[in-house]
Amino acid sequence: MRMADIITKKRDGGVLSEQEINFFVEGYTKGTIPDYQASALAMAIVFQGMNKDETVALTKAMMYSGDVVDLSQIKGVKVDKHSTGGVGDKTSMVVGPIVASCGVRLAKMSGRGLGHTGGTLDKLESIPGMSISLPIGRFIKQVNDIGIAIIGQTADLVPADKKLYALRDVTGTVESIPLIASSIMSKKLASGADTILLDVKFGSGAFMKTIEDARKLARTMVEIGDGVKRDTRAILTDMDQPLGRAVGNNLEVKEAIDTLNGHGPDDFVTLCIKAAGVILVQGKVVSTLEEGEALARAKIKDGSALNKFKAMVKAQGGDVSYIDNPSQFVVSKHHEEVYADADGYVGRIDCLEIGVAAMQLGAGRATKDDVIDPAAGIIVDKKVGAKVSKGDKLADIYTDVDAVSYQPVIVDIQRAFKLQKDEVTPRPIVYEIIE
Amino acid sequence: MRMADIITKKRDGGVLSEQEINFFVEGYTKGTIPDYQASALAMAIVFQGMNKDETVALTKAMMYSGDVVDLSQIKGVKVDKHSTGGVGDKTSMVVGPIVASCGVRLAKMSGRGLGHTGGTLDKLESIPGMSISLPIGRFIKQVNDIGIAIIGQTADLVPADKKLYALRDVTGTVESIPLIASSIMSKKLASGADTILLDVKFGSGAFMKTIEDARKLARTMVEIGDGVKRDTRAILTDMDQPLGRAVGNNLEVKEAIDTLNGHGPDDFVTLCIKAAGVILVQGKVVSTLEEGEALARAKIKDGSALNKFKAMVKAQGGDVSYIDNPSQFVVSKHHEEVYADADGYVGRIDCLEIGVAAMQLGAGRATKDDVIDPAAGIIVDKKVGAKVSKGDKLADIYTDVDAVSYQPVIVDIQRAFKLQKDEVTPRPIVYEIIE
Repeated sequence: MRMADIITKKRDGGVLSEQEINFFVEGYTKGTIPDYQASALAMAIVFQGMNKDETVALTKAMMYSGDVVDLSQIKGVKVDKHSTGGVGDKTSMVVGPIVASCGVRLAKMSGRGLGHTGGTLDKLESIPGMSISLPIGRFIKQVNDIGIAIIGQTADLVPADKKLYALRDVTGTVESIPLIASSIMSKKLASGADTILLDVKFGSGAFMKTIEDARKLARTMVEIGDGVKRDTRAILTDMDQPLGRAVGNNLEVKEAIDTLNGHGPDDFVTLCIKAAGVILVQGKVVSTLEEGEALARAKIKDGSALNKFKAMVKAQGGDVSYIDNPSQFVVSKHHEEVYADADGYVGRIDCLEIGVAAMQLGAGRATKDDVIDPAAGIIVDKKVGAKVSKGDKLADIYTDVDAVSYQPVIVDIQRAFKLQKDEVTPRPIVYEIIE
Repeated sequence: MRMADIITKKRDGGVLSEQEINFFVEGYTKGTIPDYQASALAMAIVFQGMNKDETVALTKAMMYSGDVVDLSQIKGVKVDKHSTGGVGDKTSMVVGPIVASCGVRLAKMSGRGLGHTGGTLDKLESIPGMSISLPIGRFIKQVNDIGIAIIGQTADLVPADKKLYALRDVTGTVESIPLIASSIMSKKLASGADTILLDVKFGSGAFMKTIEDARKLARTMVEIGDGVKRDTRAILTDMDQPLGRAVGNNLEVKEAIDTLNGHGPDDFVTLCIKAAGVILVQGKVVSTLEEGEALARAKIKDGSALNKFKAMVKAQGGDVSYIDNPSQFVVSKHHEEVYADADGYVGRIDCLEIGVAAMQLGAGRATKDDVIDPAAGIIVDKKVGAKVSKGDKLADIYTDVDAVSYQPVIVDIQRAFKLQKDEVTPRPIVYEIIE
């Protein structure tokens, strides 16, 4: 088998066999197939796509390119939840405790990632003492004991994806549904869960800009799940504004705590309840989505979801007193307000611009080595649909950077709020469920 | 400027600027842009193509990536002739002497290439004593003195193309008209000629399988010539059967000598006269193609073309007695005949199969280090259109390899003759002239 022939076959619109895909992934991981052939194949895939069988084969080949976590020691249905990444996305910190309090096992391994704002791991680490680096044995024990653990990915999961993703990033080959889907799914599958819920974001702040692309990506990932016999479902959720109100690490933890206390922002609560409802169906705790949603609401109301979150924080070494009394969280030196510069309705809040602004305030990493400021970030005061007058407060910012640095960020945030003359009806936060 | 952005722009169908193309070619030649980005861009070009300005810019950038030969010391119009490569193509050895005997200067630098059968350089080297490695000063002097020289390319012409072509060969990115055109034209332009005649082959034995692709390639190369103000024209010629009758190095030299003596095979003579006619127009020796063709015929008839060929052989150290008396050329140990296995008309003679057969007999190189047997090869006895009966001779083979090796080749050659029931009208050898 020759790699050049495999590239040519795909270039000409052919369907690669499982054997050819394995040859590529194994050779590329070992280094016998060079980067320049891998990037040419990736570009051919960008143009010609891959069918279901090819995408499943690619996912499996990548999944088995390194360690595969064995979660068979965990009793009961093990679920994993994955979001394609959004601004203000603190969903796992609420959905995980809800479903765990219903008897489903949430065993989540997160990647660190390089986003505008921190990932779930960075958010959890803003709780003093909280560790996200557990050995796999302790991870399994914790899930068995309390039903939930969220930790960082261990060393050698899916090396093929690590290598291929780094290559795609510099060769214009990121934008391919089968490549994105197999990258995400290979990592989820290698993490060992039985069932997976995917939260696929679309809109200005998401990798998928349109509902059509998000639907394609979600369907492809659900198909991959089918192909490997893991119950995989997806919700398509709006990312044309930040999720909830808080953007920034401990700000988001505080919002998650508020939500577990029954005081969350509407859009975020709706998303959490819907996601938990789907997972409860997947975990066979309930038989309909409606029952699942009702049970999820009940678990917030009676405090058991909050208790589960506290149990997880405690088990991972975190200081639970911060959960009971969030005012203890470190607060930024500077607090400023962002005002509307015109009258109108909020039509859209550009999440990419909000994300970059939060990063500049200290909440995210521009390079891998940057240190995150846990307290920095933005609180959105006016959401899509709100009527505002010139001078109304749109947002609060929290930062330790000096005025010279944050003043232009204030202007950027002001501009991220796209005001319009006509009244606006906000889109539903959960647009569609794909199973 | 970032290479990743250039790749993405082309992937999305954008038009690259001259600056972006220079950035790529310079960086790739120097090694600051890695192979994996070059191959991704090449694949994007395979799918999205390049417009005229981009193709001209790419050609110029490659042309100036290394040495550019200065032929200004040669007086008069300097022409170069290039064939995209065919089986039995000994055209330069006839056309060169014809036009040189009319006062046009043919200064031709050939690449060695890795084909099924030897290139022009290998054919010339089958003349005892003949050298194709002349220093550039002697090359220029010879063209000034006698009007013609054909030598091997010197060291550092178009390093960007050398590197890019080697990469394209293993990444499925050879098949792109703008990449092929700029590769050919950058080498021709770096060789310093004022005017260029391209012989673009099409058919089973050519790189371009269809007349449409050949026309596209020819037009693209003529456009590049326009873009750099060099008179460039192209003839599209048939390669659905070997050119003339001889395939193999000294066999082809002998056929060229026969042709210069006025006894060439019809198709080959027609091609040589037409090509010479176009060059004589380009060289402003005549004003119409008809006059050019008539002059070319006259130069064969009166022996001046043959004398010019002898002068070139002599100037490059070759033994001219072989030209006067070709029976001196070394002859293979074995001579066998290939017979028709059915009745019918010759519909097509697969040139790829004939080329591979000739290589297996010793006439070409399978790898760069193989040594060519000057005497080995095939003489085609029945051309397209011929009526044959079972048992008629189709071809003669000449080889030094043993019977175990050449017996299967005989069968392959037999199968390369595609016989059919219905009468066949051969296609014209020169299909179209593009200027």
